[in-house]
Amino acid sequence: MMRNGYGLFLAGMIVMGWTQWNTAQADEGMWLFNAPPRELLKTKYDFDATDAWLSHLQQSAVRFNSGGSGSFVSAGGLVLTNHHVGADALHKLSSAEHDYVHDGFLAKTAADEVQCLDLELNVLVEIRDVTARVTAALKPEMSLAESEKARRAVINTIEQESTARTKLRSDVVTLYNGGLFHLYMYKKYTDVRLVFAPEQSIAFFGGDPDNFEYPRYDLDICFFRAYENGKPAKVKDYLKWSAAGADDGELIFVAGNPGHTDRLKAIDHLEFLRDVQFPAFLDLLFRREVLLKTFGERSPENARRAADEFFSVQNSRKAMGGGLAGLQDPRIMNMKRAAQQELRDQFQSHQPKFAAAEQSYAQVTKALGVLRTIHLKKMLLEDHSAMDSRLFDIARDVLRFADETAKPNTERLREYRESNLESFKQDLYSTAPIYDDLEIVRMTDGLARYMELAGADDPLVVKVLDGKSPRERAAQLVRGTKLKDVAVRKKLAEGGPRAVQASDDPMLAVVRMMDPAARAVREIYQQQVDEPMRQAYGKIAQARFALAGKQIYPDATFTLRLAFGVVRGYREGGVELPPWTTIGGAFEHAKSHDNVAPFALPKSWIEAKDRLDLATPFNFVSTADIIGGNSGSPVVNRAGEFVGIIFDGNLQSLVLDFVYTDEQSRALSVHSSAIVESLRKVYHADRLVDELRPSIVLPGTGEQ
Amino acid sequence: MMRNGYGLFLAGMIVMGWTQWNTAQADEGMWLFNAPPRELLKTKYDFDATDAWLSHLQQSAVRFNSGGSGSFVSAGGLVLTNHHVGADALHKLSSAEHDYVHDGFLAKTAADEVQCLDLELNVLVEIRDVTARVTAALKPEMSLAESEKARRAVINTIEQESTARTKLRSDVVTLYNGGLFHLYMYKKYTDVRLVFAPEQSIAFFGGDPDNFEYPRYDLDICFFRAYENGKPAKVKDYLKWSAAGADDGELIFVAGNPGHTDRLKAIDHLEFLRDVQFPAFLDLLFRREVLLKTFGERSPENARRAADEFFSVQNSRKAMGGGLAGLQDPRIMNMKRAAQQELRDQFQSHQPKFAAAEQSYAQVTKALGVLRTIHLKKMLLEDHSAMDSRLFDIARDVLRFADETAKPNTERLREYRESNLESFKQDLYSTAPIYDDLEIVRMTDGLARYMELAGADDPLVVKVLDGKSPRERAAQLVRGTKLKDVAVRKKLAEGGPRAVQASDDPMLAVVRMMDPAARAVREIYQQQVDEPMRQAYGKIAQARFALAGKQIYPDATFTLRLAFGVVRGYREGGVELPPWTTIGGAFEHAKSHDNVAPFALPKSWIEAKDRLDLATPFNFVSTADIIGGNSGSPVVNRAGEFVGIIFDGNLQSLVLDFVYTDEQSRALSVHSSAIVESLRKVYHADRLVDELRPSIVLPGTGEQ
Repeated sequence: MMRNGYGLFLAGMIVMGWTQWNTAQADEGMWLFNAPPRELLKTKYDFDATDAWLSHLQQSAVRFNSGGSGSFVSAGGLVLTNHHVGADALHKLSSAEHDYVHDGFLAKTAADEVQCLDLELNVLVEIRDVTARVTAALKPEMSLAESEKARRAVINTIEQESTARTKLRSDVVTLYNGGLFHLYMYKKYTDVRLVFAPEQSIAFFGGDPDNFEYPRYDLDICFFRAYENGKPAKVKDYLKWSAAGADDGELIFVAGNPGHTDRLKAIDHLEFLRDVQFPAFLDLLFRREVLLKTFGERSPENARRAADEFFSVQNSRKAMGGGLAGLQDPRIMNMKRAAQQELRDQFQSHQPKFAAAEQSYAQVTKALGVLRTIHLKKMLLEDHSAMDSRLFDIARDVLRFADETAKPNTERLREYRESNLESFKQDLYSTAPIYDDLEIVRMTDGLARYMELAGADDPLVVKVLDGKSPRERAAQLVRGTKLKDVAVRKKLAEGGPRAVQASDDPMLAVVRMMDPAARAVREIYQQQVDEPMRQAYGKIAQARFALAGKQIYPDATFTLRLAFGVVRGYREGGVELPPWTTIGGAFEHAKSHDNVAPFALPKSWIEAKDRLDLATPFNFVSTADIIGGNSGSPVVNRAGEFVGIIFDGNLQSLVLDFVYTDEQSRALSVHSSAIVESLRKVYHADRLVDELRPSIVLPGTGEQ
Repeated sequence: MMRNGYGLFLAGMIVMGWTQWNTAQADEGMWLFNAPPRELLKTKYDFDATDAWLSHLQQSAVRFNSGGSGSFVSAGGLVLTNHHVGADALHKLSSAEHDYVHDGFLAKTAADEVQCLDLELNVLVEIRDVTARVTAALKPEMSLAESEKARRAVINTIEQESTARTKLRSDVVTLYNGGLFHLYMYKKYTDVRLVFAPEQSIAFFGGDPDNFEYPRYDLDICFFRAYENGKPAKVKDYLKWSAAGADDGELIFVAGNPGHTDRLKAIDHLEFLRDVQFPAFLDLLFRREVLLKTFGERSPENARRAADEFFSVQNSRKAMGGGLAGLQDPRIMNMKRAAQQELRDQFQSHQPKFAAAEQSYAQVTKALGVLRTIHLKKMLLEDHSAMDSRLFDIARDVLRFADETAKPNTERLREYRESNLESFKQDLYSTAPIYDDLEIVRMTDGLARYMELAGADDPLVVKVLDGKSPRERAAQLVRGTKLKDVAVRKKLAEGGPRAVQASDDPMLAVVRMMDPAARAVREIYQQQVDEPMRQAYGKIAQARFALAGKQIYPDATFTLRLAFGVVRGYREGGVELPPWTTIGGAFEHAKSHDNVAPFALPKSWIEAKDRLDLATPFNFVSTADIIGGNSGSPVVNRAGEFVGIIFDGNLQSLVLDFVYTDEQSRALSVHSSAIVESLRKVYHADRLVDELRPSIVLPGTGEQ
């Protein structure tokens, strides 16, 4: 599944699909909406990507800040995404009494729609190029530390000014790893309500064994509704439902938020990912997967509590394993190496014009040298959830919120920039349930891992453990902290540094012990790794623009991109795989696995079998260029009509992190016809179907 | 579960339960049968451990060379062990058509007993102290390399002479990590047949969640029969079945083969285990657990193929995780540290007599320094199954068999010593099935891990991968090798070095590439780590003998030991846990988990519920000092009668690797009454029950 959960951890890391240099014919690219591949589309598919067509698609696309994509599919603010993107919100709304993730949900009337606890949706309204202003803030005589500070200051300021002026969420996005800086302005929806989710057993039919596989049979969908002022949002742009969905060989487009790619990264950088970053993170994922599985097996309620995190970890493990397999494939690395050499040869042949670009590779290598020395420390002390405890994360957010908001906006760490505070608070003050038992199990393992990797005699480890075993210490901290109470969090965070320093909360006390070291390693990272890399990749990107114009797309950044391709099957192991599966195939697939979980269809489907048109297309594959974060992206036809929703890539697509290939790599989507067919005949969700108004379905009859 | 599977990996690593120095009152110790704790038993329990009593128990005890313990329970050679000890043999006898591990097995008649493929059972006939001869072979002027060679030569020779003279399997066992050398002589049974196994769902009821937990409800038993000359073996010594089993507070004894402990290891050595060895091995286990689970989830047949290995990995992961938690508990380490200091203070106060012992700690530390530098390389190149492929292991065995047997016995690596060749061939020439698909998945991961840990640019890695991705290379090697054919293995191994060098088998070719480096790291380990440690620990042990006499037991060595204790419940989390559970409790436990796997009782039990006496004791706990390898050990009463069978320890017992404690640590056994009750009423195994002749059961009535 292509959710952008753990992928976000990797943010800050990416190598352009070099193929585009050679053959502009592939369906390659995660294109900027303000720099679409118009010529390519015109030449290859005789398609005119007009401003109106693009703008309509852009404003119909919705970003899920929890890590995915979606789209408006009605004038009444109805949003369609994947079940596995909605799962975070579903999980937070669930309890021992009702489990929306597992059992699904249907709001029979508007009044039954349930408000999510902390979900934020973004619609991209406008993009502005602010590269000149960002670049002007940096002077040649500045040290790396000064450049980093100056860059952060100007970006924080640009965003704050934009937010103040437009009231829109405003994020400066670093493109081409430092080549361009664009200001993205979003309309934000924070009152989002749950409308419909199917059972997880059909949304994730085939489970982990079938994840990233094809053929597939997943109804991986979930409907929410955006509200404004307590009423359903009225939206101008939404996607009309296609009559028949996409056909074999048909041109389709994907508008979504791919989270992260490494296509433009230097070879040395890819080797760092291969040798250090991916293995270290995979080790963590293996460990967490076992931990959560073990916790979940103790009882159904334990399983429910751990389910969302367990899915995330499993999914990331499979995705990252596939990515690492790509990096460990000598042919892929040799292809990347040859492409880099080709580019560097071009730089060489245009000396002195591209001397700085050519020298930038050495700068990347030098920064990687620093990163190697701090990688472990950064992972343990600074990176998200190193302690694997939500309460620890909350405590750190509280501490840093107090400290950072006491500073001028220009000097703050990025998360605490003025323009981001509303979103930050929505997360920090979320009333989503926190379970002590799961927290203790997770934090015990987090502390044990910290002990293993930093060393049991490390002075900070000794201080943090306070003479106790990891398990005892975790139990003491989790049971002792008052931060489970949102009011306490609020009071402390907004009480400023003095309130936080005076608090005797044990979890805050631990965060206070660790934060100086965490900040120190972050500062080294920002100043000696991230900043020189941005400068280096910026120069390389500029040189490439000069050579090839801007008909290069940047690496993915969890911002809106346009991809395109055709519906097309492929050959694997001598077998010709069809462009789509059918609803009937799901029943056969279940039968061939003895109807045992994760291959057991839900009761609702078994009962509806006779009513269903088994020939209805269920999932289909296309050559569109997608990656994690694209989950939930709408797939549209030339007319901009909704024909499907991206929910996964196949195993062969996992190398798309580094290089595009269309031989076997495919994007997987749920077909629009399967959505309507199941909503009508399995779920009797007539209110929803009426709202979607698929033109070909005759209301009340279910006939086509 | 206490099987000695992955525990064997750790062989070569152990710190005496220092408590015995202070309080000789605890039920502590894994005692040698030729040095039993007679005084302690007399003083504490008024029990006379007579020579006859000891000899009968020793000759009734059976070692499973696949990694566990058992006992003769009839004059007709019937052997009782755990299901999870027998599982290796059950797995090898299973196929897609019949799955003895999952479904169980019952031989209705003698003719139905199924011969195992490569199982070897050992009965300890005699022990001789050969310390003087081993020690005499080492001269003070020898270098470490010379000492190691001389020691190996004399040990290989002693064993060969003994085998030639007695026809018994003869192993020199290093005790006290180098303090004493004893020659163990075993009667060997290699024709072993399967008689009975219950379904895994009751043998391992509660699965991984309940593993190492109490209360428990597991019928973890399996019956085999030893044959000689094609007929059931007639054995003089076997355990008579107890009428009523053990009562609360009753003194019991355990005779089994604990695999490995670290109680006598120096603090620096424990820190090495904590900081390096345990974490590295746990990382591997997490990874393999996920790999095998993922493979198994694809289909029931995949699950069957991976089941035995999956269980081993899960079990080791939980055991090792518990061990590491002990090492990471500052109180345990502080206790060990204080005990070591106390001992060293005694050495100091007896200078110069114990100067060598006192200086030995520095020698251990120095050897650990070497080990740190080679640990990764040794793990990757030399340790068992680093490639995680049975076919790779076979290829290496073939290569080394040819090379080593061409040398004089005194110069051979230990596995290839003359006295071991019969057992070695039983394993190498086993016709146990090997599944290409599972081999490829495992070896792919083994190669990927090798690439990660040794570095993708390591010259040997590059050579081994031969320009292919790990997956392609694994598929090529597994599909291409002819070593699946036992006749090919035999021909090559016995054809000598020339035949092996001339072979174009691709798996052999890879082994040839890697073996020089593997042998090199092994030689460093043998000469600069293992040998100086044996010398150092030998001196420390001798000094302790001088101080305290031989009333110290050695660390576990997967050889026969005597433990003792009492049946006794314990308090945990404020709850008083009873000394035993009942059969009725199993039904309640299943119900409280919605009868969902791994808490689903088999059909046979559900159908038999009305017939069963639900008050029958099922599992019981005792204070006996046991560890992995003790699985299947008989538990006997003062009269030497069978009252139960060890199958597990609780979570709190996992620190027994380092230190004995009886506050909460408990050994778990299946109660003799539950065995007879279920054999009669669930399995209608009358032939078996008649043979066991539990005196209180009236044949044919099932009444008590």
